Amino acid sequence: MLYVVGFGSGSRENMTLEAEKIILKSDIIVGYTAYTDILKKYFPDKEYYSTGMRQERERVIYALENSKKKTVSLVCSGDSSVYGMAGLAIELSINYPDVDIEIISGVTSALSGGAVLGSPLGHDFTVISLSDLLTPWDKIIRRIEYASISDCVIVIYNPSSKKRADYLSRACDMIMMYRNPDTVCGTVRNIGREGQESRILTLSELKNTAVDMFTTVFIGNSETKVINGRMVTPRGYKINE
Amino acid sequence: MLYVVGFGSGSRENMTLEAEKIILKSDIIVGYTAYTDILKKYFPDKEYYSTGMRQERERVIYALENSKKKTVSLVCSGDSSVYGMAGLAIELSINYPDVDIEIISGVTSALSGGAVLGSPLGHDFTVISLSDLLTPWDKIIRRIEYASISDCVIVIYNPSSKKRADYLSRACDMIMMYRNPDTVCGTVRNIGREGQESRILTLSELKNTAVDMFTTVFIGNSETKVINGRMVTPRGYKINE
Repeated sequence: MLYVVGFGSGSRENMTLEAEKIILKSDIIVGYTAYTDILKKYFPDKEYYSTGMRQERERVIYALENSKKKTVSLVCSGDSSVYGMAGLAIELSINYPDVDIEIISGVTSALSGGAVLGSPLGHDFTVISLSDLLTPWDKIIRRIEYASISDCVIVIYNPSSKKRADYLSRACDMIMMYRNPDTVCGTVRNIGREGQESRILTLSELKNTAVDMFTTVFIGNSETKVINGRMVTPRGYKINE
Repeated sequence: MLYVVGFGSGSRENMTLEAEKIILKSDIIVGYTAYTDILKKYFPDKEYYSTGMRQERERVIYALENSKKKTVSLVCSGDSSVYGMAGLAIELSINYPDVDIEIISGVTSALSGGAVLGSPLGHDFTVISLSDLLTPWDKIIRRIEYASISDCVIVIYNPSSKKRADYLSRACDMIMMYRNPDTVCGTVRNIGREGQESRILTLSELKNTAVDMFTTVFIGNSETKVINGRMVTPRGYKINE
């Protein structure tokens, strides 16, 4: 039996009761090294198998092979589908007709990071990854453009890496074609983990801010504001009646 | 102290460890009647205060008033920000300078419903509510249009109500201007609750399907497919190597 488990931000408390229960009953925990390192702190007595970045296919096949006879958790931070391993596990499972797969949802960083900032996701929003490893940049920037035009809150995953240090800045340039430079934005780094830090800033400040791959970026819509140091996108309720 | 708590889909297991802990330590649980009814099953010994729909402002003020001297959980299904009460609580808290507020994230139905269907959110996605109580329809349909052009997966919340029975059908018409009628779609009703049901269907079938307000709707992107009865949006990993 294979469970693909999203374990949330990385704090133990952000995990669902279901994720914890399934990890506890699993024979092997399989995942990217940075993720299994987090879980080892909470579940030190389990058996782990981990591989590095860009070894996703090999990791999923290992999990499927072992699921024939054992209970395996293939773990992802956040949710198991959002830029996670659930899709790849289902795709590769066609070669493992006897293996049952269950997908276990989790709190993705748009939500856990949003709670740190306040309530940036109070209205319609778009989640876009700036990683161009598997998606052409043209398609990414086009999605940024249309989300900007439609005044959706935009949450950016994987905003930066060594090879693409200027991607967030280029995304901000595109957004500023349609949205005010004073638009309220936020960044959250190491959500739920040691050294968590967050910042609220304007879109034009964000353009000139260096962020790393452990950061999730929030770009408000035209109504997003700062209240008592928190980023809030109103749903539209009347406040004064 | 006021906590605004997202408790996930409604199954106890979809709750985070943190949400459970905070509800257990709260003196009063405040929420929409349908939500407190769910929590009463899991936490029968707590004190509850509930009000009906469209009484959000009054409910939040009750929670803030009581937070001066007590520990209060203002509860929302799913996440506490995504069409939830977190934003309104922060907005109204300017009149309660002595009340501390903490926002507790949860698994929103895009994620919990996605896990039921398979892995529809394997790539960039947009969450849009079709409720026009607080947002003009023109703005909603424009967001649907831009999400369609940019080939994002679209998750639709509040797809229907008595007064707007044809909104989902009109949204499908708009999407079909840019996306194939055979696009893979999914619906999940009563996620994590009694009577949970899900269906995978094409966009043209979805257009002619009646759904209710307890349903979350998923519209795939151009690469979304059905694998072993599951809806999967690939991230783009090479499967055959």
